[in-house]
Amino acid sequence: MENCCEGAGNFFGRQKNTNIRVSLPAVCFVWQIAMIILFGVFIRYNEESDVRKWIEFKHSHNITSDIENDFYFRYPSFQDVHVMIFVGFGFLMTFLKRYSFSGVGFNFLIAAFGLQWALLMQGWFHSLDPNTGKIYIGVENLINADFCVAGSLIAYGALLGKVSPVQLMVVTLFGVTLFAVEEYIILDLLHCRDAGGSMVIHAFGGYYGLAISWVLYRPNLHQSKRLNGSVYHSDVFAMIGTLFLWMFWPSFNSAITAHGDGQHRAVINTYLALASSVLTAVAISSMSQKRGKLDMVHIQNATLAGGVAMGTAAEFMITPYGSLIVGFCCGIISTFGYVFVTPFLEKYFKIQDTCGIHNLHAVPGMLGGFVGAIVAAAASVEVYGREGLIETFAFEGDFATRSVLTQGGYQAAGTCVAITFGLVGGALVGFILKFPIWGDPADDNCYDDEVYWEVPEDEETIPPVLEYNNHMIHKHQDISESNFSVEQS
Amino acid sequence: MENCCEGAGNFFGRQKNTNIRVSLPAVCFVWQIAMIILFGVFIRYNEESDVRKWIEFKHSHNITSDIENDFYFRYPSFQDVHVMIFVGFGFLMTFLKRYSFSGVGFNFLIAAFGLQWALLMQGWFHSLDPNTGKIYIGVENLINADFCVAGSLIAYGALLGKVSPVQLMVVTLFGVTLFAVEEYIILDLLHCRDAGGSMVIHAFGGYYGLAISWVLYRPNLHQSKRLNGSVYHSDVFAMIGTLFLWMFWPSFNSAITAHGDGQHRAVINTYLALASSVLTAVAISSMSQKRGKLDMVHIQNATLAGGVAMGTAAEFMITPYGSLIVGFCCGIISTFGYVFVTPFLEKYFKIQDTCGIHNLHAVPGMLGGFVGAIVAAAASVEVYGREGLIETFAFEGDFATRSVLTQGGYQAAGTCVAITFGLVGGALVGFILKFPIWGDPADDNCYDDEVYWEVPEDEETIPPVLEYNNHMIHKHQDISESNFSVEQS
Amino acid sequence: MENCCEGAGNFFGRQKNTNIRVSLPAVCFVWQIAMIILFGVFIRYNEESDVRKWIEFKHSHNITSDIENDFYFRYPSFQDVHVMIFVGFGFLMTFLKRYSFSGVGFNFLIAAFGLQWALLMQGWFHSLDPNTGKIYIGVENLINADFCVAGSLIAYGALLGKVSPVQLMVVTLFGVTLFAVEEYIILDLLHCRDAGGSMVIHAFGGYYGLAISWVLYRPNLHQSKRLNGSVYHSDVFAMIGTLFLWMFWPSFNSAITAHGDGQHRAVINTYLALASSVLTAVAISSMSQKRGKLDMVHIQNATLAGGVAMGTAAEFMITPYGSLIVGFCCGIISTFGYVFVTPFLEKYFKIQDTCGIHNLHAVPGMLGGFVGAIVAAAASVEVYGREGLIETFAFEGDFATRSVLTQGGYQAAGTCVAITFGLVGGALVGFILKFPIWGDPADDNCYDDEVYWEVPEDEETIPPVLEYNNHMIHKHQDISESNFSVEQS
Repeated sequence: MENCCEGAGNFFGRQKNTNIRVSLPAVCFVWQIAMIILFGVFIRYNEESDVRKWIEFKHSHNITSDIENDFYFRYPSFQDVHVMIFVGFGFLMTFLKRYSFSGVGFNFLIAAFGLQWALLMQGWFHSLDPNTGKIYIGVENLINADFCVAGSLIAYGALLGKVSPVQLMVVTLFGVTLFAVEEYIILDLLHCRDAGGSMVIHAFGGYYGLAISWVLYRPNLHQSKRLNGSVYHSDVFAMIGTLFLWMFWPSFNSAITAHGDGQHRAVINTYLALASSVLTAVAISSMSQKRGKLDMVHIQNATLAGGVAMGTAAEFMITPYGSLIVGFCCGIISTFGYVFVTPFLEKYFKIQDTCGIHNLHAVPGMLGGFVGAIVAAAASVEVYGREGLIETFAFEGDFATRSVLTQGGYQAAGTCVAITFGLVGGALVGFILKFPIWGDPADDNCYDDEVYWEVPEDEETIPPVLEYNNHMIHKHQDISESNFSVEQS
Repeated sequence: MENCCEGAGNFFGRQKNTNIRVSLPAVCFVWQIAMIILFGVFIRYNEESDVRKWIEFKHSHNITSDIENDFYFRYPSFQDVHVMIFVGFGFLMTFLKRYSFSGVGFNFLIAAFGLQWALLMQGWFHSLDPNTGKIYIGVENLINADFCVAGSLIAYGALLGKVSPVQLMVVTLFGVTLFAVEEYIILDLLHCRDAGGSMVIHAFGGYYGLAISWVLYRPNLHQSKRLNGSVYHSDVFAMIGTLFLWMFWPSFNSAITAHGDGQHRAVINTYLALASSVLTAVAISSMSQKRGKLDMVHIQNATLAGGVAMGTAAEFMITPYGSLIVGFCCGIISTFGYVFVTPFLEKYFKIQDTCGIHNLHAVPGMLGGFVGAIVAAAASVEVYGREGLIETFAFEGDFATRSVLTQGGYQAAGTCVAITFGLVGGALVGFILKFPIWGDPADDNCYDDEVYWEVPEDEETIPPVLEYNNHMIHKHQDISESNFSVEQS
Repeated sequence: MENCCEGAGNFFGRQKNTNIRVSLPAVCFVWQIAMIILFGVFIRYNEESDVRKWIEFKHSHNITSDIENDFYFRYPSFQDVHVMIFVGFGFLMTFLKRYSFSGVGFNFLIAAFGLQWALLMQGWFHSLDPNTGKIYIGVENLINADFCVAGSLIAYGALLGKVSPVQLMVVTLFGVTLFAVEEYIILDLLHCRDAGGSMVIHAFGGYYGLAISWVLYRPNLHQSKRLNGSVYHSDVFAMIGTLFLWMFWPSFNSAITAHGDGQHRAVINTYLALASSVLTAVAISSMSQKRGKLDMVHIQNATLAGGVAMGTAAEFMITPYGSLIVGFCCGIISTFGYVFVTPFLEKYFKIQDTCGIHNLHAVPGMLGGFVGAIVAAAASVEVYGREGLIETFAFEGDFATRSVLTQGGYQAAGTCVAITFGLVGGALVGFILKFPIWGDPADDNCYDDEVYWEVPEDEETIPPVLEYNNHMIHKHQDISESNFSVEQS
C-alpha cells in the first residue's frame, strides 16, 4: 500500500521525500533536552506554589486561609482553557475525511512542545526576577503558556494538510518566540489591555498562519482535491471541537482578568457575544445556500467569532447589549468570509487557508482589537468609578496619568503591531519552511494521514464484493476471512 | 442528489416545501435584533460583575477578599451545566444514523437563542428591580438561563427528526416563556424548592415535548423507518452526550443551591443516585432482551434517570442511602418505559417520542417532584437544626411560619403545576406548529439531515462496485476519482 | 445472525454459553441492594455536607465564609477526575473496531458499581468513626472513591475484549477490596505519601490486571485476530479518551493534596511531566516505524506516562525541570514497552494485555513510586522549611520523628507492597474467573460487541452490491429497502 502511494507520487508529480524517521525524533529529542536544561537554569516555583515561600507569604501578608492562593481563583478557568487548546483546537481540525489523526495528533504534539517554550519565552520577557535571574511560575503562567501556544495552533489551521510535523515544530518554535516579543511590546511597552487576546493571540496567529500559507502556496494543490473535504462522521467529530471552544470561551477571556468583578464580567460578556454570533452565523449560512440548507463549515467556525472579537473588550464595561452587538456583527462577517473571502484569497492572493482562519481568527481578532480601543476610549469615571478605572486599565506607575482616550489610541496601535508581527514573521518563517529538508508531502499527497501515520485497514478499504467471490476469498485467505466475519457480525 | 430526494418525496407522499432560505434567516435576524434592543433597555451587570458596584459592595459589606464574589462559588458548576446543555443534550441526540448534524446543530442554535430570551423572561419575573426597571445579571442568572433552555431542549428530544429548525425556534420561544411563568408560580408563589429542576425543568419539559408531539402526530411516519435508527458509530457519539450529562449532573443539581453545605450535599446525593440507576438500568436492559444482550438506547438514557429524579430532593437531607434508593427505582422505571411504554404511547396515544423523553424526563421528573415533597414533609428540627431548616427551605418573610408538612403539600402541588403547564402549553404550541409555513419535512423525509444541511458525499454513498467498472469510472470522472483513491488509501 | 455466531462458535472451538440474561441482572440487583443496606447502616454526611453540622462547625471554628468549605477547594478537581474515570478511561477503550460499546459501556457499569463499594471499603479502613460506627462522607471521599475505581478500570484495560460484564463486576468487587487494604497498609501503616496514586492506583491496578490476564491466558485468541485492531474512526474516538486523561491529569494528581501550595505545585509538576512525555513518545514512535510514521497506539497511551509517573512526587518539591526529566524518561520507556515488551510478554509470559497497561500503568506506576522515594529522601529543611516539611510529609503524631531518609525507604517499600497486592490478588481473582459460569466469550468471539450488545445493522454490513441486484432486493425487502435509501441519501 505504501509502495502504491509512492508510485502515485511518481506518477502525478514531483517526487517528495516524506521520510521523517530521523528528523522528527531528532527535533523532539534535541528540543526536549534543551527545555530540560533551560528549565533547570531558569524556572522555579513561585511564592504560591513553593511550600516554604507560601507559608512565609501567608505569614507576611496576614493571610489566614489557603483559599486566597491564586490557584483557587484561576484553576477552573485554566482547565477550561486547557480543554480548548487540546480538544477544542484538536477536534476542530478533525473535519477532513482522512486527516483526523494529523489534525488532533499534531495539534497535541506542537501544543505540548509550545507550552514549555512559552513558559521560558514569556518568563524572560515578563517575569524574570532581576535579582535571582530566575522565572517563578504559578497557575497564571500555565494559562499564559496555553494562550501563547494558541497563536501557533491558529496558524496550523491555515496549513492543515500541507505541512509535515517537523515543519509544524518549526512554526511553533518561531510562533511562540514572535508571540512573546509582540506581547511584550503590546502589553508592557504600549500598556494595552488584552486579557482574552483578540490582538496578541487571534490577530497575530491568524495573520501569521496566512503569511506562511502565502509563501508555501501550492499551485497544484488540486491534485489532492479528493481528500480536501469532510465525510459525515468527521464533521460530527469536528463539532466536539467547536462546542468545547464555544462553551469554554468565557473561561478563555476571563482566565487572567482581575479577580472578582473582572473575571465575572468577562464571562458574561463573552457568553452573550457567543450566543449572538450563533444566530447570525446560522442566518447567513442558510441565506448563502440553495434551499436554505446549512453548511457545517459555517456552524463549526463562524459561531465562534463572537468569542474571538470579545477577547479585548470582555473585561471592560462594554455592557451586555454591547456584547450582543459585537457577536451579531462578527457572526455575519465571519460567515461571509467563508462564503466569499476564502475562495477570493485563494484565487487572487494565492493564500490556501484550509480551516479559514482568516474568517475565524484574523479578521474577528483585528475587529476585537478595534472594539477594545473604542470601548477603552469611551470609558468614564461615572461608569467605572475612579478606583475601578485604575483597576481595569492598570493606570498605575508610569501610566498613572494616561487618559482613556490615549489608552484607546494605544489599543488600536497594539492591534496594528500584532498584525505586523504576524505578517512579517509569518513570511520569514514561510521562507525557512521552503528548504527541501522538512519532509512535507507532495501536492497529490496532501490532506492524507497515510503519509505520516500507520493508518488501520478499514473494513471499507477491502472491497465488499470480495465476499461473494469464493475464488478470491481463497486467494487472499487472511484478509477476506477477517472481512467476511466483520461484514456478518 | 437533491432532485432525487424531492422525487422520492413526490413518489411516497404529500409534497412539502422544506425551503427555509427566507424563514430561518428572517427568524434569526429579527429575534436577535429584538434581543439586542431588549437587552439595551433592561439588562445591566449586577453588583458582583460591575466594577464600580463591586468595589462599593466590598466596602459596604466589609468584604476583604474577591474570593467572596459569587463567581467563585458557582462558576465551575456553571461551566459543567453549560457542557451538559451543549455537548450533553447535543451529542445525546446524535444517535440517529443520518440526523447527527441536526441533533447537535439545532440543539446548538436553539440553546444559543433560548438563553438570551431566558435571561429576559426570568429577569422580568424574578429579578426586575422595581426602582430602576432594570434586570441585574451575574453568574447565577447565566445558570438559570441554561436551566430554562433545558426545558425546550428536552422537548426537542421528542420532536427529533420531525420538525424544521424554524419550528424549533418557535418551540423554544414559547418554551422559555412558559418556563418562566410556571417557574414564577412554583418557586415564588407556591414557594417550592426545586434547585435541580425535577419539576420546573424535567416534568415541564417532558410533558411539553410530549404534548407537542401528540398534536404533530404523523400517521405515515413509518415511511422514514429506514432512517429512524442508529449505526455503530452514531451510538458511540451519543455516549459522549450520555457521559457528560451523567458526570456533570451533580453540578446541575447543586449549581444554584445554598453556598457551603447545600452545594456539597446536593453533589453527594446526585452522585449516588446516578451510580445506582446505572446498575438497575443495565439489569433491566439485560433482562428485557434475548440472551441478556444490552440495548444502547437504555444505556444512553435510563442511566441518567437518577439525576433527573434527584433534582428537587438533592439539596435536602435525603441521606446517602435515600439517594441510592431513588436511583434504584428510577433506573428500573425508566428502562421499563423504554421497553414497554414508548411503543404503547405511540400505538394507543399517538405520541411519537423519538428520544423517549417520557421515560427519561417526564416520569422521573414527576417522581422527583413527589420525592421532594415527601422528603420535605419529613424534615425535622432534629436533623436540620432550627437554623438549617430555615436556610434549606427558606422559611423567611411571608413563609416564616410555614410547617414542613405544608411545604410538602406545596411541593406536590408544584409538580402538578409543572405538568399542567407542559401539557396545555405544549398542545397550544403544537397547534401553532401545524400551520403549513414552517418548512417541516414530509413523512418520508424525516430523520434526514439532507433536508436542512449540505451533507458531504461519503465514500459509502458511492457504491464501491464502481471502482471495478471502468466504464462507469470514466462516465463519472470526478466522483469516481475521489472514491478510488480513498478506497485505496 | 445470532444463530450464525453460535454456529461459528461450534465450528471454530469449544462451545461457550454467553447468555447473561440471568447472571448480569442478578449480580446488579443483589449488589445494588446490598449497597443500599450497607449505606443505610454506615454512611452519613460529614460535617461539611450536613446542614446542621456545618452551621455548628462554622460557629465552633469561627468560620465566617462558606468558601472555607472543603467543597470549594476540591470540587473542580473532583469533576476533572470524574471525567477521567468515565470519559477518559471509557473512550480510551473504544479503539477496537467492534468493541467500542463494551469499551465505554462496561467501563461505565463497573465504575458506577465500584465507586459505591469504594465509599464503603475506604470508609471502613480510613474514616470509620469509632464512637458512632458511621462513615462520614464529603467531596474528598468521592474523589477517593473515583481513585479506587481507577485501579479496576486499569485492570479492565488488560482484559478488554476477553471477559464478560459479569466477570468485570467480580474484578471490580475484588479490585476495590484489595485496593482499600493495600491503601490502608501503604498510606496508614507505612505512612507513605501517594496523592496521585503512582503506587496505590497505577502499580497496583497494572499488576492486578496483568496477573488476571496471565491466569486467563487464551492460547487460541488468534481466532479473534480479525477484530483485535482499530478502524479509522475508532482511533479518533480513542483520542477523546487520551486527551481528557492528558488534560485533566494535573487535577488527578492534585485533587487530594494539601490546600494551597500543595495543589498548586502538584498541578505544575504534572503539567510539565505530561508535556515532556508527549515529545519523547512521538520521537520513539517515529523511530520505531518504517519511514518514521507514527503509531496511534503510542500516541493514545505513551503520552500519558508522565502523568502516571508523577503520581507520588507531584506534591513534593521535585522542581519543574525534575518533572520534565521524569516525563522525558517515562515517555521513552512506555513507548519502548509498546514496541517490544508487550509482544514479548504475550509470547514468553503468556500475558495478553489488550491495551498495554503494562507500559502505561504498571511500569510507569512502579517508577513513579521509586521517583517519589528518591525525592522524599532528598527533601531538606532548606528547601521545604521546617513547617513545610511537616506539612508535606505529615510528620505528625506517631511519625513526628521520622527522617526524610526513612520516609524514602518506606515509600520504596510501599511500591513493593502495591505490586505484591496486584500480582497475588490478581492471580487469585483470575482463578475465580476461570469457573465456567461467568458467560465469557469463546476464543473466536472475543473483541466483539455482538456477544453482549444489540448492535445496530450498519449500512456497511449489508453488501452495497445488493442495490444493483433487483432480485435480491425483492427477496430481502425490509433490509434492502432501508439500505437502498441510505446509500442514496
